[in-house]
Amino acid sequence: MVICTFCKRRDAVYMRPYSGEKLCAKCFIGSIENKVRVTIAEYEMFQHDDKIMVAVSGGKDSVTLLHILAKLVEKFPKSSLCAVTVDEGIKGYREEALKFAVKNCRKLNVEHTITSFKDLFGVKLDELVKTIQKTRTDDTRGLTPCAYCGVLRRRALNVAAREAGVDKLATAHNLDDETQTILLNLLHGDALRIARVNPVLAESHPKLVQRVKPLCEVPEKEIAFYAYQRRIKFQSVPCPYASTALRSDIRLFLNRMEEKHAGIKFTLFKSVEKIKPALEQAVAETKLRECKFCGEPTVGDVCKVCQILQTLNIIG
Amino acid sequence: MVICTFCKRRDAVYMRPYSGEKLCAKCFIGSIENKVRVTIAEYEMFQHDDKIMVAVSGGKDSVTLLHILAKLVEKFPKSSLCAVTVDEGIKGYREEALKFAVKNCRKLNVEHTITSFKDLFGVKLDELVKTIQKTRTDDTRGLTPCAYCGVLRRRALNVAAREAGVDKLATAHNLDDETQTILLNLLHGDALRIARVNPVLAESHPKLVQRVKPLCEVPEKEIAFYAYQRRIKFQSVPCPYASTALRSDIRLFLNRMEEKHAGIKFTLFKSVEKIKPALEQAVAETKLRECKFCGEPTVGDVCKVCQILQTLNIIG
Repeated sequence: MVICTFCKRRDAVYMRPYSGEKLCAKCFIGSIENKVRVTIAEYEMFQHDDKIMVAVSGGKDSVTLLHILAKLVEKFPKSSLCAVTVDEGIKGYREEALKFAVKNCRKLNVEHTITSFKDLFGVKLDELVKTIQKTRTDDTRGLTPCAYCGVLRRRALNVAAREAGVDKLATAHNLDDETQTILLNLLHGDALRIARVNPVLAESHPKLVQRVKPLCEVPEKEIAFYAYQRRIKFQSVPCPYASTALRSDIRLFLNRMEEKHAGIKFTLFKSVEKIKPALEQAVAETKLRECKFCGEPTVGDVCKVCQILQTLNIIG
Repeated sequence: MVICTFCKRRDAVYMRPYSGEKLCAKCFIGSIENKVRVTIAEYEMFQHDDKIMVAVSGGKDSVTLLHILAKLVEKFPKSSLCAVTVDEGIKGYREEALKFAVKNCRKLNVEHTITSFKDLFGVKLDELVKTIQKTRTDDTRGLTPCAYCGVLRRRALNVAAREAGVDKLATAHNLDDETQTILLNLLHGDALRIARVNPVLAESHPKLVQRVKPLCEVPEKEIAFYAYQRRIKFQSVPCPYASTALRSDIRLFLNRMEEKHAGIKFTLFKSVEKIKPALEQAVAETKLRECKFCGEPTVGDVCKVCQILQTLNIIG
């Protein structure tokens, strides 16, 4: 057996190609929690007395984030943790994920809010998908379920966080998500959106709760191994609508690159951090206003949520 | 047979996936020349009375560029065209490429200068490669032949252009080169270098001749087909040192993406054009000085060329 590089006592169970470290289960778990702590400090994600809400879908990443933050928050008696799950209305998928979210929150004694597309927007995602498939106007062609679900989910999370009166909304985007999104934005012709792939998304409007991504520097593979080692239970069935062809191609490419050139995802992530200030300056000029229909912060007259709902004749 | 979408008379020989056009040989040739004309106008690459030097390696892209520019320049009686070839000193490779460069220039009646690493830097690339393989200090580890050859070649081209008193130095970088370089810079952790992947590289020092890339919006595949249709002769053996593993992986990825999502290279290229102004502002602050050894423009005290030659004990 190979001995752990850290403790030099226990057997190694994980080999980290980009650092050469060989880690035992205990040191691996410690290294991930430490990495998250360092990321939080580096990007100044939290204050010692922050009320933090975690967006918990019930999947591997978000449940893991909940477990790690629950551990970290213990050390800050003035801080607090709660969770929110958005029920998009996806039959045969969301019900089970919800159960995992509920179970994990209960186990960790974390207050848990559930919000739904149906309550907030009067429509389930399943219904939206059907309507869009039926109508197929020029406005909706090319709109993938992920595209509008994302818009509505971000809104739902922000509303929940605002109503709970929290200071920060933590999402579980990992290093793979972030690097994929960087390339996706570039290949979609939307390079300026890279400015939004941010460990901390600064509130530019009083109605927007600050979003933070404490797992943004942890590779997906290591989150999975962490969850496995800590026997964390989560939903592992993928969403039935998940089908962004381009993103899976990019995921494949980045995984292959990482295999050949260990550490390349992290390099890409840090590389983009370097140009972020310049990009942020470029997008800073777009001041947010309030949507004339729903009053939520938006760039134009009408927010994206209302645009989607209008297109589908769900609202006037 | 399928009829040409353009002239609606001749048989189509080329199908352009990203536009759906099916083109006959004549219309295809015209479309490439027109594309180059549009690129030149869009980025204001040339004045009507410019003295233009083309960097001709003897390969497909540079020889094609020479042919296209020779045609375009005919219409501007006050402009002129000449060519330069850099002999890096690569045995069994450069000699043949040089022959193609000479032949094409002669055929087009274009004045042709040949410059060499040996004359300029006192050393051939073959010798440099051997020295680096022998020494392998911390400074030279990880330096690929392409890396230092690129630095020396750019210097050689600039010196040749300056000595010839031309206004512009045209290089044959195509859409594939440029998009690969964009991703390469990102994955290398050097995102700010994207600012230099520019159709027009503005002179920021009186000793630097302005560089332009008239083929930057033409896919490599179409340049090859253009050369084939016009029966242009070029060197097709790849350089024996060409071995940038990461670049070939990126090339493969982009080619696969282009096959699945036609036009994605162009989208990526244009996407980055959008963030260029922000990046350029960020790098604009680095003022160029003159190298204390050779007097050529550089960011620091000592230029990269002198750094390379010093590391290898070729100069003091």
